[in-house]
Amino acid sequence: MKTIWNRVHEKAPLVHAITNYVTINDCANMVLASGASPIMAEAPEEVAEISSRSQGLLLNLGMLRSDKLEAMILAGHAANKRGIPVVFDPVGVGASAFRMNSARQLLHEVSCSVIRGNASEILSLCQVGSSQGVDAAKADALTQDTLVQNASYARDLARRTHSIIAMTGEIDLVTDGHIVYQNHHGCSMLSRLTGSGCMLSALVTAAVAANPEDPLLATLTAVTAMGLCGEIAARRMREQDGNGSFRTYLLDAVFCLTGEKLEEQAHYEIW
Amino acid sequence: MKTIWNRVHEKAPLVHAITNYVTINDCANMVLASGASPIMAEAPEEVAEISSRSQGLLLNLGMLRSDKLEAMILAGHAANKRGIPVVFDPVGVGASAFRMNSARQLLHEVSCSVIRGNASEILSLCQVGSSQGVDAAKADALTQDTLVQNASYARDLARRTHSIIAMTGEIDLVTDGHIVYQNHHGCSMLSRLTGSGCMLSALVTAAVAANPEDPLLATLTAVTAMGLCGEIAARRMREQDGNGSFRTYLLDAVFCLTGEKLEEQAHYEIW
Amino acid sequence: MKTIWNRVHEKAPLVHAITNYVTINDCANMVLASGASPIMAEAPEEVAEISSRSQGLLLNLGMLRSDKLEAMILAGHAANKRGIPVVFDPVGVGASAFRMNSARQLLHEVSCSVIRGNASEILSLCQVGSSQGVDAAKADALTQDTLVQNASYARDLARRTHSIIAMTGEIDLVTDGHIVYQNHHGCSMLSRLTGSGCMLSALVTAAVAANPEDPLLATLTAVTAMGLCGEIAARRMREQDGNGSFRTYLLDAVFCLTGEKLEEQAHYEIW
Repeated sequence: MKTIWNRVHEKAPLVHAITNYVTINDCANMVLASGASPIMAEAPEEVAEISSRSQGLLLNLGMLRSDKLEAMILAGHAANKRGIPVVFDPVGVGASAFRMNSARQLLHEVSCSVIRGNASEILSLCQVGSSQGVDAAKADALTQDTLVQNASYARDLARRTHSIIAMTGEIDLVTDGHIVYQNHHGCSMLSRLTGSGCMLSALVTAAVAANPEDPLLATLTAVTAMGLCGEIAARRMREQDGNGSFRTYLLDAVFCLTGEKLEEQAHYEIW
Repeated sequence: MKTIWNRVHEKAPLVHAITNYVTINDCANMVLASGASPIMAEAPEEVAEISSRSQGLLLNLGMLRSDKLEAMILAGHAANKRGIPVVFDPVGVGASAFRMNSARQLLHEVSCSVIRGNASEILSLCQVGSSQGVDAAKADALTQDTLVQNASYARDLARRTHSIIAMTGEIDLVTDGHIVYQNHHGCSMLSRLTGSGCMLSALVTAAVAANPEDPLLATLTAVTAMGLCGEIAARRMREQDGNGSFRTYLLDAVFCLTGEKLEEQAHYEIW
Repeated sequence: MKTIWNRVHEKAPLVHAITNYVTINDCANMVLASGASPIMAEAPEEVAEISSRSQGLLLNLGMLRSDKLEAMILAGHAANKRGIPVVFDPVGVGASAFRMNSARQLLHEVSCSVIRGNASEILSLCQVGSSQGVDAAKADALTQDTLVQNASYARDLARRTHSIIAMTGEIDLVTDGHIVYQNHHGCSMLSRLTGSGCMLSALVTAAVAANPEDPLLATLTAVTAMGLCGEIAARRMREQDGNGSFRTYLLDAVFCLTGEKLEEQAHYEIW
């Protein structure tokens, strides 16, 4: 993990993100915290050109509009053509038919290196729980009890999409359809901060962009680093601190994390 | 107020927001700080579906575009149909004919449970001061001197729109057209932070979504809580702190506020 | 500089910004930190009206879309007609043909008081390095070695566009085509924070809006203040702090900066 993490700083890859406006600033700062360089662009006139010059492309389904979906597909085609890794974050894919249909179209048209979502989102893509909408979150939660079933769905989706699947929650699973890694890093504050998932997907894109030869380990590294940084940020919280401070501490923790520290403190296992 | 506030945490209602991009992240984090869950969506293809599944809908006029107005109306219709409370924030309604006409159309088509704005915005909706544009702010300011006149306009607007009106500033007024509540909580820093009004409207939506049976008290509770949290945040400021830190402290204060503390420290009176 | 800076607080000019969504919140808070008042609006239906009522207009090319370009031109025409200063920030202009063509069209149609960009952006506008795209950054960096050449390009662009050019980086240059000012304020953290350039352009707009009679000195003042505030923010950083904290500290530093302190600590020279 040390080498994977340090390579982001060394290579400072350009990450092109087409993402929602709720957390777009946090995603840009997360990419910068990791040592990579962000560019946000979504005009159909320029997305293919910018994706072609980047080392990684992030497609985030939050606050989707139909013109943005078109831009994502244009950018995805350009990235695929040049072998630039694409990371897909199916934000709230179970919340509407529009997002679900768009996600399917996107996965049909664009080959994604990694799909990163919470349990509800990944299960929705597996056509499990998609009809339950937003309230399905609790039932889907990725805990020790649901681990076996969730890992099986994640592995199936990985095989079907030829993507690495990162399913994150109380437990994080990362699989290429064969090996399944799991870690238990993270903290409950992450669910009280908007954009913690989006930021993780941005971090995964930076890691994969700098390590295109090993997207599985790069994804696992980013997922583990984010969990670890959540813990570091939570430990820094004092009386009177809430999700405002936690947001700052989380970015700070990623900014300060070294490959050495990550290697030393990260725990993960093959499932 | 204790019960109203605690119910947001207990019920964790889903709040659908169609809002401006300047403060969209702050609004999402404010909803999370209150214990509710935010979803932002504005594509015409999905807004009705998402509103229908939510417990509260926030419509914010800032940075309006015509396609967004259409989405607001679609979402508003869906919410009205199911009796889901709608909160309207007429951001900068006096700043252009486009916003004023859009606000009128929206109020004509959508039944709003609550309208929350500063004095200039509420007075503009009353067709008072609307021609003075953005510079009207000082003349309109809600102070002890203008209280009688402003309360009268707020009450009239409440009766005419069948909405609860929250008119906020140095003094805050909340009225259903009959009772007028006022409180003096708040601090001057709130006017030096972008989005303090938008965040308050988001908090009102969360409170009303969790307490649909008492929107008047829910609105008063959110308005009072925000003023109190502004004071808590201001007291936390140290040398070298400015509006950057204040933003963090404000979110933190809402995150940490318990119903018990609110009940104990909140002061408001019937006018 | 003292008078220029204090006048922003005294006049509290209204700044209309049409800007990218990545850093739009930071720009609004930066305008408020300076003592000015921000309004963001981009609907073609209202931009001319809002620009006409403002004291300064900021046009930022980041995340450009074609409909936004149209709005920028409408707003720019309205501002030009009334002699309201326009500040242009050509974000990532070298990153795509779309941005370059749009920038040219904008400069052709709108008379800009100030153009503020990093070295790559300003050189791209000079048609130097435009074909090198995003990776040109290092070669273009504004350091002691490239100073003579960069100053010459900046001066030429200033003469050709009749604009003040602010080219910022390790060294900052401000020129009206005749005098060239330089300062060495700033810190490396500014390049690890998204929006530091956008925020500077917002600060320049506030300064010029409050001091329309001396846009050259107003621009120099804002550029110098930002560099100084970057240093103040960097000195405030403690162990565990990263770009999350730096963002807060930077806004805080601008918020707390007085004209007296700026006058005392600012160093700049005529080149």
